Amino acid sequence: MVTWKNLDTLTSYQELVENPGKVNLAEVMCAERVREYSIPMGAGLVYNYAAKSVDEEIIGRLKALAKEAELVEKYAELYNGEVVNTGEKRLVLHQLTRGQLGSVVTADGVDKRAFYVEQKDRIAEFAKKVHSGEIVNEAGEKFTTVVQIGIGGSDLGPRAMYLALENWAKKNGTFQMEAKFISNVDPDDAAAVLNSTDVAHSIFVLVSKSGTTLETLTNESFVKDALTKAGLDASRHMIAVTSETSPLAKSSDYLAAFFMDDYIGGRFSSTSAVGGAVLSLAFGPEVFDRFLKGAAEEDALAKNPDAEKNPALMDALIGVYERNILGYPATAVLPYSQALSRFPAHLQQLDMESNGKSVNRFGEPVSYVTGPVIFGEPGTNGQHSFYQLLHQGTDIVPLQFIGFRNSQIGTDVDIQGSTSQQKLCANVAAQIVAFACGKSDDNKNKNFEGGRPSSIIIGDMLTPESLGALLAHFENKVMFQGFVWNINSFDQEGVQLGKVLAKKVLAHETDGALKVYSDLLNI
Amino acid sequence: MVTWKNLDTLTSYQELVENPGKVNLAEVMCAERVREYSIPMGAGLVYNYAAKSVDEEIIGRLKALAKEAELVEKYAELYNGEVVNTGEKRLVLHQLTRGQLGSVVTADGVDKRAFYVEQKDRIAEFAKKVHSGEIVNEAGEKFTTVVQIGIGGSDLGPRAMYLALENWAKKNGTFQMEAKFISNVDPDDAAAVLNSTDVAHSIFVLVSKSGTTLETLTNESFVKDALTKAGLDASRHMIAVTSETSPLAKSSDYLAAFFMDDYIGGRFSSTSAVGGAVLSLAFGPEVFDRFLKGAAEEDALAKNPDAEKNPALMDALIGVYERNILGYPATAVLPYSQALSRFPAHLQQLDMESNGKSVNRFGEPVSYVTGPVIFGEPGTNGQHSFYQLLHQGTDIVPLQFIGFRNSQIGTDVDIQGSTSQQKLCANVAAQIVAFACGKSDDNKNKNFEGGRPSSIIIGDMLTPESLGALLAHFENKVMFQGFVWNINSFDQEGVQLGKVLAKKVLAHETDGALKVYSDLLNI
Repeated sequence: MVTWKNLDTLTSYQELVENPGKVNLAEVMCAERVREYSIPMGAGLVYNYAAKSVDEEIIGRLKALAKEAELVEKYAELYNGEVVNTGEKRLVLHQLTRGQLGSVVTADGVDKRAFYVEQKDRIAEFAKKVHSGEIVNEAGEKFTTVVQIGIGGSDLGPRAMYLALENWAKKNGTFQMEAKFISNVDPDDAAAVLNSTDVAHSIFVLVSKSGTTLETLTNESFVKDALTKAGLDASRHMIAVTSETSPLAKSSDYLAAFFMDDYIGGRFSSTSAVGGAVLSLAFGPEVFDRFLKGAAEEDALAKNPDAEKNPALMDALIGVYERNILGYPATAVLPYSQALSRFPAHLQQLDMESNGKSVNRFGEPVSYVTGPVIFGEPGTNGQHSFYQLLHQGTDIVPLQFIGFRNSQIGTDVDIQGSTSQQKLCANVAAQIVAFACGKSDDNKNKNFEGGRPSSIIIGDMLTPESLGALLAHFENKVMFQGFVWNINSFDQEGVQLGKVLAKKVLAHETDGALKVYSDLLNI
Repeated sequence: MVTWKNLDTLTSYQELVENPGKVNLAEVMCAERVREYSIPMGAGLVYNYAAKSVDEEIIGRLKALAKEAELVEKYAELYNGEVVNTGEKRLVLHQLTRGQLGSVVTADGVDKRAFYVEQKDRIAEFAKKVHSGEIVNEAGEKFTTVVQIGIGGSDLGPRAMYLALENWAKKNGTFQMEAKFISNVDPDDAAAVLNSTDVAHSIFVLVSKSGTTLETLTNESFVKDALTKAGLDASRHMIAVTSETSPLAKSSDYLAAFFMDDYIGGRFSSTSAVGGAVLSLAFGPEVFDRFLKGAAEEDALAKNPDAEKNPALMDALIGVYERNILGYPATAVLPYSQALSRFPAHLQQLDMESNGKSVNRFGEPVSYVTGPVIFGEPGTNGQHSFYQLLHQGTDIVPLQFIGFRNSQIGTDVDIQGSTSQQKLCANVAAQIVAFACGKSDDNKNKNFEGGRPSSIIIGDMLTPESLGALLAHFENKVMFQGFVWNINSFDQEGVQLGKVLAKKVLAHETDGALKVYSDLLNI
């Protein structure tokens, strides 16, 4: 049995507070350190933390914290099916969608791993029939496009994963169907997507666990309207991804329904049917399997109690050090890969929605800071934008770089003696050292203080496997940090109040300030 | 003559520090306050700050700060052509691209306003010839697509503006050509855009003020390769937007060259030829003129010394209060408009690159915090993502909402008694009140503390005029804040060190840590 304690009650944390340590990055950075501060990840990736403001002593204290907080033991509770989501009294089983880390988990009378595999297999079969032309539209023609209708975790993760692999799939001959996404309740979102989509040859994937998400149901109506106006039978163009108990599960409005359940949180659902349907249709089930394989490799590494062999655990511990000891309020995610353009937006949800909490898992207010603000854009674009503040602003923002040795498409040009891919990689290497070491200049406007910490995840190429490992790394990091902070990373009560008030506005049941805002917005 | 003083040397700032004030938002929010704390902007927009943590007393102190810091006088220096960019010894004239706020500004022997107008007119003439079929490709066919090649300010602003007006233009019959953008040095960016573009019918706009931006020249080569491989004459498909002194200015490689100059900073260049070429080609010169008109209206309002009639000034002052007195490190930009999906990324550059500085305009370190981290995504998407942290996280993040009464396309559905547009507006109204007032609950996990400040800009519809006003509002806000902090908002020395080190990596002139990173990345 593990015990759940607040961070500030732990002896090892008090030790850290009293002995915070101090690293002068410019002084310590050397070849040996870069070689040593490196942990193999799944799918051939490497997590390198040489440019983080830690040393052996600090790492020692962080490892003591990991031990006292029983982080890998809590991880084991999670994958062995304990009710880790205490707020909603639920199991947390997204990892079973890609493997079996511990014992068989039975819930609701079924082997949950078998259940998720069954859904994946059903999706694979369906996708193959669509690709082969066994499932076709009213006119007997093949479907060419898949449109996901979902919001939050049913949108950001699957969309980021699709964009990450789109060009890879085209290059490698596994691209099957173009995918599009409708998410916002802003009617211009659905209208614009539909105006540029050949609806007669499109399959729409409605994704809502409860089957009651207002934005998603509204956008479904939007789509049904468009299909009907085009003289089409909506039920021949729509599938549902939902829970078995939702109103969508057995409706004749859908060609098929695929299931997840309450044990898969939206922001952790990319490897479930939520990501599986659209990604299997777009790239084929084999590509989705490879993506799961990468995630499973990473999940297995996260079991290791030694942080120096557990990249997600080390990343989580360093993040806690930066947040609670050094007091940094934000973290930037900076992939040097255009294909990962929306990966920061997914991590923004994953991290901020999981760990942006002020009460512990027992509902008691905590007296330390929890999850940071997460933001980011791909490099080199960001270098010509907000990096100015990262280099010379008054606040220090820890950085998470991601880089790959090879591009996905492989088309390149040689200018001034180097390829674009070499320029891209040279820039990320240069940025790490520029941030860490700085450069003094008598002209203070050209002075770089350095001491701005970063880590980098390096891979050979962004493939289904490495994308899966990358995704799982951050999922596991976020969960470990939630354990450290003793919060429930799996509920999201903070989104409820807005929903309640929006309903009141729509029902015209408002007064005071809210009434005036409603009037100003002409509701 | 104005005087440039550090914020902490101002009497009015010391008054604020000693009397910071305190507002209980849940207590003060009422109908009257929402009606009163409202300032008309250009193009029919309104800036409402009722949900900000300010009251009459605090506003009084902020107005005293504005007066003592001579903010509108400094703004006048800027638009009258003083060398406000002291670091690079340059004038700051982007506002002349859309109007004449003060006296005639002569530099380099020419009337700069006339120069910018001339360039705009040349672009308009060129665009009309492209649209009418007077300028065509080798085969005598019309161009259908325009592809901007640029990075940072030559990409983020124009791209955000294009996306903001794309659906509006399609709906209103002014849509002329699809626009695409290539920015990243990642070869997969250019390759993916080119693979999905009909290059034979495309005009490429190369945007680089100096004509030496490595990313942009690399991507130009990429494009020229693709054109040549397609058997096309690259010089018949490319135009340049650059300064008159750049190597691109008189090159025969381009169909035409249009000019900006050193007085237009990249992140302030959307209303210059940098935005003008792509937007005039995409939507027609008349739409671009309307966009400029909205910006000019906003610029004129920013001259008012009374913050209660000057929305950009009020926004800037409240931001300084939140940053320097309340100590909030980040600000979220949350447009309830899918068309503004990339507007936060543009503001991220505008704000963080301008005001992420640690030295004052004389090169002396400042002892107070300057620009915050800026991030954001469109609502309602963000509500299902990072809003959890905004509502219940341990840090307070001030919010900037943007909302419009009407959608751009006008296609909508009525579900559960309301349209999507009404749902969208109801949500933003609800969020403001939820953040400000909170809601107490004995279950602390469902408790909302409130006191989370926001402002909202409300308009009738996102049109060229209101987009111009929105853009100029934030440009002027950022400049006012730069004046308060006594920093130079117009240089970006922080981006230089990375460039220098990247060149060393590419030349294999590295050792120590940088050498190992280079090896890990296989450069």
